[in-house]
Amino acid sequence: MSKGKEEVKLLGVWASPFVMRARIALNIKSVGYEFIQENLGSKSELLLQSNPVHKKVPVLIHDHKPVSESLIIVEYVDQVWSSSPSMLPSHPYDRAIARFWASYLDDKWYPTLKGIGGAKGEEERKVLIQQVEEGLALLEEAYKKISKGKPFFGGDRIGYLDIAFGSFLGWIKVTETVFGTALIEEVKTPGLAKWAEKFCEDVAVKPVMPETKKLVEFFYFLRAKFAGSA
Amino acid sequence: MSKGKEEVKLLGVWASPFVMRARIALNIKSVGYEFIQENLGSKSELLLQSNPVHKKVPVLIHDHKPVSESLIIVEYVDQVWSSSPSMLPSHPYDRAIARFWASYLDDKWYPTLKGIGGAKGEEERKVLIQQVEEGLALLEEAYKKISKGKPFFGGDRIGYLDIAFGSFLGWIKVTETVFGTALIEEVKTPGLAKWAEKFCEDVAVKPVMPETKKLVEFFYFLRAKFAGSA
Repeated sequence: MSKGKEEVKLLGVWASPFVMRARIALNIKSVGYEFIQENLGSKSELLLQSNPVHKKVPVLIHDHKPVSESLIIVEYVDQVWSSSPSMLPSHPYDRAIARFWASYLDDKWYPTLKGIGGAKGEEERKVLIQQVEEGLALLEEAYKKISKGKPFFGGDRIGYLDIAFGSFLGWIKVTETVFGTALIEEVKTPGLAKWAEKFCEDVAVKPVMPETKKLVEFFYFLRAKFAGSA
Repeated sequence: MSKGKEEVKLLGVWASPFVMRARIALNIKSVGYEFIQENLGSKSELLLQSNPVHKKVPVLIHDHKPVSESLIIVEYVDQVWSSSPSMLPSHPYDRAIARFWASYLDDKWYPTLKGIGGAKGEEERKVLIQQVEEGLALLEEAYKKISKGKPFFGGDRIGYLDIAFGSFLGWIKVTETVFGTALIEEVKTPGLAKWAEKFCEDVAVKPVMPETKKLVEFFYFLRAKFAGSA
């Protein structure tokens, strides 16, 4: 669908899993783009104009037209640069299942993971960690069914659900490091443990996956900032 | 994509806007289906087995395979019964825009509308009504841009975003009736007022759009039930 010389910009921040989704999708499709780092404390005019409703990153700007919301960007990239392999499954049922789990991750699972850092007290934190683990058990089961023995949810290649889930791996590692808990590991989630390793090694992922050490530092920075403003 | 004799069941409840989305999509594609009314106070085994993660309606069961989440069902129906006109825009950018607003409706706008009924006191209710109206002003603007003078977001025919938004019209009318406020009307939202009328008259919508009077009764029933359990 895409032809000739085109302008592709991505407004984002390095630590955001949602921004990472857009970057992985663009990498998979070998689309060159300008990455414009936003300062969320002082958002740029371009961001405010491009996403006036949510004022959030990521925003993909393709030939001056803005597209917002990470999974919508992934689908857009998949459809526009359609000569490369598709990220969404081709069969309608497989596609519905991939969308189902991506929506589960965003609406239920990730808000719980995020809540662990801000939990009030050890008791609340334990409950949230348990909920995250229950979610991972569901995802382990889903992985076995969907991947059918292949390395990725998308089969032999990274697909839509791999991107949706894999973009959280950095923050999963932060949670494991900071709170001394194992979330994805060989005994409880053997399939996901192998999947996560392969995902992080992938040529489309490696250049945009932040180092855990940097993310952990950023976590403490954010925590200090919120504590200060509370 | 679909061929021959097939079994299509929909698990739902009559008053749910999300269930209505699936029904409108099936009507647009002229797909016959068995509508199985669930009692949400005592969910059926079939529902619990078909949607074990959320245990929620709607669930479409197509040849024994369950698909959950209303907008995912709409996309699934669109792709499976692909010989009829498509509900999703064909151009990737138009598609991304339709998805953006559908996601805005579900994540931001509808939770606010829903909150009006449960507001604690007049002050909180006023704030929520104002937020709903601000959202409708955004949607009025989006309608003008997207429909380009045609009756629907989808152009001459009801499309994905029409279904996503139009399914809330019954509960918008309930809110207007119960709280004596005008939300979609000719002065503030002239485009949406005409659109809503056309939408409700459509042959795919009319048979599944509940009467406002019945929905209002159901609202008071739910309110009494929640007040009793509080």
